[in-house]
Amino acid sequence: MKKGCVVCYVAAIILVTTLLQTCSVTAFFADAVPQPFVSPGHGFPGFNSMRHRNILRDEVTARLKELGNVSDSKDVLQRTFLSPAALAAGRLLAVWMKDAGLRTWEDELGNVHGRSDGANATAPALLLGSHMDTVIDAGRYDGALGIVTAIAAVKVLKVEGKLHQFPRPIEIIAFSDEEGIRFQTTFLGSSAVAGTFQPKHLKNVDARGISIGAALRAASHLGTTESVSSLKYNPASVWGYVELHIEQGPVLEAHGLPLGVVEAIAGQTRLTVRVHGSQGHAGTVPMSMRKDPMIAAAQSIVSIENICTHPEKGVGGSRGATAMSTAVNHAGAIVCTVGEIHSWPGASNVIPGEVMFTIDVRSKDDSDRETNVVRIEGGIHKICRKRGVRCSIERKHEANAIACAPGLNDRLHAAAQAAMKELPPFRNNVSALDDGGFTAPTLVSGAGHDAMAMASLTQVGMLFLRCTGGVSHSPAEHVQDDDIWAGSLALLHFMEGVLGDLSR
Amino acid sequence: MKKGCVVCYVAAIILVTTLLQTCSVTAFFADAVPQPFVSPGHGFPGFNSMRHRNILRDEVTARLKELGNVSDSKDVLQRTFLSPAALAAGRLLAVWMKDAGLRTWEDELGNVHGRSDGANATAPALLLGSHMDTVIDAGRYDGALGIVTAIAAVKVLKVEGKLHQFPRPIEIIAFSDEEGIRFQTTFLGSSAVAGTFQPKHLKNVDARGISIGAALRAASHLGTTESVSSLKYNPASVWGYVELHIEQGPVLEAHGLPLGVVEAIAGQTRLTVRVHGSQGHAGTVPMSMRKDPMIAAAQSIVSIENICTHPEKGVGGSRGATAMSTAVNHAGAIVCTVGEIHSWPGASNVIPGEVMFTIDVRSKDDSDRETNVVRIEGGIHKICRKRGVRCSIERKHEANAIACAPGLNDRLHAAAQAAMKELPPFRNNVSALDDGGFTAPTLVSGAGHDAMAMASLTQVGMLFLRCTGGVSHSPAEHVQDDDIWAGSLALLHFMEGVLGDLSR
Repeated sequence: MKKGCVVCYVAAIILVTTLLQTCSVTAFFADAVPQPFVSPGHGFPGFNSMRHRNILRDEVTARLKELGNVSDSKDVLQRTFLSPAALAAGRLLAVWMKDAGLRTWEDELGNVHGRSDGANATAPALLLGSHMDTVIDAGRYDGALGIVTAIAAVKVLKVEGKLHQFPRPIEIIAFSDEEGIRFQTTFLGSSAVAGTFQPKHLKNVDARGISIGAALRAASHLGTTESVSSLKYNPASVWGYVELHIEQGPVLEAHGLPLGVVEAIAGQTRLTVRVHGSQGHAGTVPMSMRKDPMIAAAQSIVSIENICTHPEKGVGGSRGATAMSTAVNHAGAIVCTVGEIHSWPGASNVIPGEVMFTIDVRSKDDSDRETNVVRIEGGIHKICRKRGVRCSIERKHEANAIACAPGLNDRLHAAAQAAMKELPPFRNNVSALDDGGFTAPTLVSGAGHDAMAMASLTQVGMLFLRCTGGVSHSPAEHVQDDDIWAGSLALLHFMEGVLGDLSR
Repeated sequence: MKKGCVVCYVAAIILVTTLLQTCSVTAFFADAVPQPFVSPGHGFPGFNSMRHRNILRDEVTARLKELGNVSDSKDVLQRTFLSPAALAAGRLLAVWMKDAGLRTWEDELGNVHGRSDGANATAPALLLGSHMDTVIDAGRYDGALGIVTAIAAVKVLKVEGKLHQFPRPIEIIAFSDEEGIRFQTTFLGSSAVAGTFQPKHLKNVDARGISIGAALRAASHLGTTESVSSLKYNPASVWGYVELHIEQGPVLEAHGLPLGVVEAIAGQTRLTVRVHGSQGHAGTVPMSMRKDPMIAAAQSIVSIENICTHPEKGVGGSRGATAMSTAVNHAGAIVCTVGEIHSWPGASNVIPGEVMFTIDVRSKDDSDRETNVVRIEGGIHKICRKRGVRCSIERKHEANAIACAPGLNDRLHAAAQAAMKELPPFRNNVSALDDGGFTAPTLVSGAGHDAMAMASLTQVGMLFLRCTGGVSHSPAEHVQDDDIWAGSLALLHFMEGVLGDLSR
């Protein structure tokens, strides 16, 4: 080491020491490296945030990594309903559930349950969970995150001796199918628990011709209408269902915060539009003599975006006032997507005879959705009439929105807020915002989740966790370790809130 | 027959007889059945139009039918370069050429020639022709029509004893490849005669790995650079090339006339546009946070149509005054087509990451085409910048326009006019229009033709013949028998015009 370097080194130590004495460490580092969050404070003892960092952060990230390696493919992550990897994942989760003080079982649809009776085995239970199946070439957070963080939060209750004081049973469920990859039917696991599983689906077959019933029997289940129907929980035995899930969108990242509360899961309409025109040679038909379905389709797509960025209120009106609606709309209360488009015959030198495209419309408000779907349909028909082409619009799928329970939302807001205030990477951010009446962002889930199925059984609540770039269903799916910590801690705070009900 | 009917029958005969005495028969039937043309006059003797109806109409339609059955497939019409059916078609055409008084030979690229020396074997020759190959599942008129009508017109010259008085050699060429189906290279036959065939193409292979050279050798040709290069005609030995072809578009049908004169074959630019945005979940990304390439592509497609229906003049300016340009534009002087479009990943519930589409721009004026292609490119880039998506535009193909020779155009106009005035189905129509200075419509060919290749050898002229609905490259391709008659007769009038040069 050269002499000059030694001088610099000493000066640097003095400077850092001085700074540590005069500033909050977090603030210092936040100034120096504002994005992305690094969490230097974790090395220093004394923060509340340090409570069970090993369980709520480090063990969760390690377990998610381990679970992410349980795959039916050696190249990519894939665990489909009842596949060897899915069954192995269930066994692994059961081990972790036991480690958290829960007694476990696998039910007749392959869902893995872990339950503690708490202080009152007959009180309506708090259910927590998410799904353990994945898409093909998945990320390791989608679904798994909600199960593993719930296990960690329950484990802390156990470690702190609070699990047996809990005023109601706690049950974590790792649902066996949410993605619907193998049988093209989503929510197999949660719909059985909720009692909406349709026994006729036992005859659905996968790509190899194996039925759901046969797959269940191969996994040592009965696979009968009765065995599946018996899974339905008695609504009176359940207090509510809470799920933490990655956002799979960019809203929390834009807010610069790890946690948000889901107020509704959007309803959905899927349309297929076919525009029929006059097919012709690209060189021989003058512009003025064309009936080109491509231009009509393009104008329609532009009009769809215009309608969905300026949606009209439905006859039922939206929940809440206009100001709230505007804020919520910004967070995705109505979204419209044209994802697929094809032309026929699809040659560069042929004016198409037909153009087909899809429209996906989602909103938390069914009346708003219907109003704007009708506007979209009307707009397309008007364009087609004007251009002398023929349009057909088919509604391929419709599902109504699910509202999360305001009572659970309030608890989840408080829990998210508390978790963020407690953790060094977020506390200053949150405190600053708190002065302005800040709460964790309220989001609408555009994607379906097990909570959607569980809503027909009980009140549901959901927390969303920020994921990098909003990316999901991809190996690039990522959640920062500190965000995971915030998530587990929020679930813990939520349960401590329920625990506090006792003392009220 | 009942009594009332007998009365009606007699009354009808009296009525018809009276009408025949007081009206032109054609006018009567034209009033009664205005569309489509029926040709009742044909049954009455005394019209000029009856001149060689058997050769110019009936034999041509019969031969087109016969040739349309010469196919490599028993289900659909297909004759690709040097296929068994293509070689059989060539032999059949040679027989018909001999029947018309021509001596015939097949050249080293499979083109079939029929030639008469006329009155002066060393004068520059008039070449007539079109192609004998077809697309897959073709109609029977595309290409074949131009050869068979030319043979018919020459046959009439022979029958009337005028062939040997003709002031210059007449040569009909049935080109072996125009469609480019087998080797994905168009104009193989005509480019060899024109001297623009590139010997490197002898190595091009078809789907079965057979090269053009090998295919030629299998058909008893040499298939060498020398043998193919030797086909080039000396420009001094050629006076001009004239081709009759179906329009493959709807303009003549809209004019209500069978014949048009082609003033230019459009130049062409083919572009591929790729719009890259942010792929995302259709439910989780708010409208305001999207970078959706689909909307940018849709806006671009709308802007392209707008530019091409309101094109700007290029720096070189178009031939003729504004009024004429407007008229010509109406007939297709600039046409733009988006024929192919795809989204990636192309799922209804995914905001696309990329949208690709093609643009085909054609104009008779290269400067206009370039000006408007630049406007299109600029428009797309502007839309993409505004929407925060990334666009790449690649020019995949460019070909300059070919102007037909004004001298030949004038002769073809006169010939088309004369043919239409001579034939009962058209004469009244044409006469009426003639009073207002009517000539056969002037068209721009948006499709490429052998005349395009021949233009590098000699002056070219083209006649277009109306086809039903503008349909081509389809078994539904159709030309009415009387229109065929008009086409053969126009070629005959054109040659009689050349014959008349002698007497000037």
